[in-house]
Amino acid sequence: MVYVSPKATVLDPQGAAVEQAMKSLGHASVEGVRVGKTISFELAGEDTPETRAKIDELCDGLLSNPVIEDYRFEIEQG
Amino acid sequence: MVYVSPKATVLDPQGAAVEQAMKSLGHASVEGVRVGKTISFELAGEDTPETRAKIDELCDGLLSNPVIEDYRFEIEQG
Repeated sequence: MVYVSPKATVLDPQGAAVEQAMKSLGHASVEGVRVGKTISFELAGEDTPETRAKIDELCDGLLSNPVIEDYRFEIEQG
Repeated sequence: MVYVSPKATVLDPQGAAVEQAMKSLGHASVEGVRVGKTISFELAGEDTPETRAKIDELCDGLLSNPVIEDYRFEIEQG
């Protein structure tokens, strides 16, 4: 499972929109809404440094935009 | 932190598109890609059943579409 989130220093307009919507639904105390994404997938092979390097490559090049987003991933053995 | 993911029985076109892109980048063994979202925010108050009911209400009505998506949330004390 890959978790991608906007960097703390980057404006998150989607989060701001959701925050506005939450407030207008009466949840006035909501603050600091940030919207991220998750990508889950299955990959053949063992949990080796090579596999992790492959996943890093996918995360950096395709699943996240390293300029404005951070990512982390967790591997579950299936 | 709220985690929203497409229900297992629902087609996930965004996941299918990402899977195609991963395969075309040479990661042929990738399978079952699903794309979800996360929403993190701060809320004043204690972790009470009332707070959880409030978050459920937000999740059901605004943050997820209960027809096609599942959600779960975790509360971190700040």
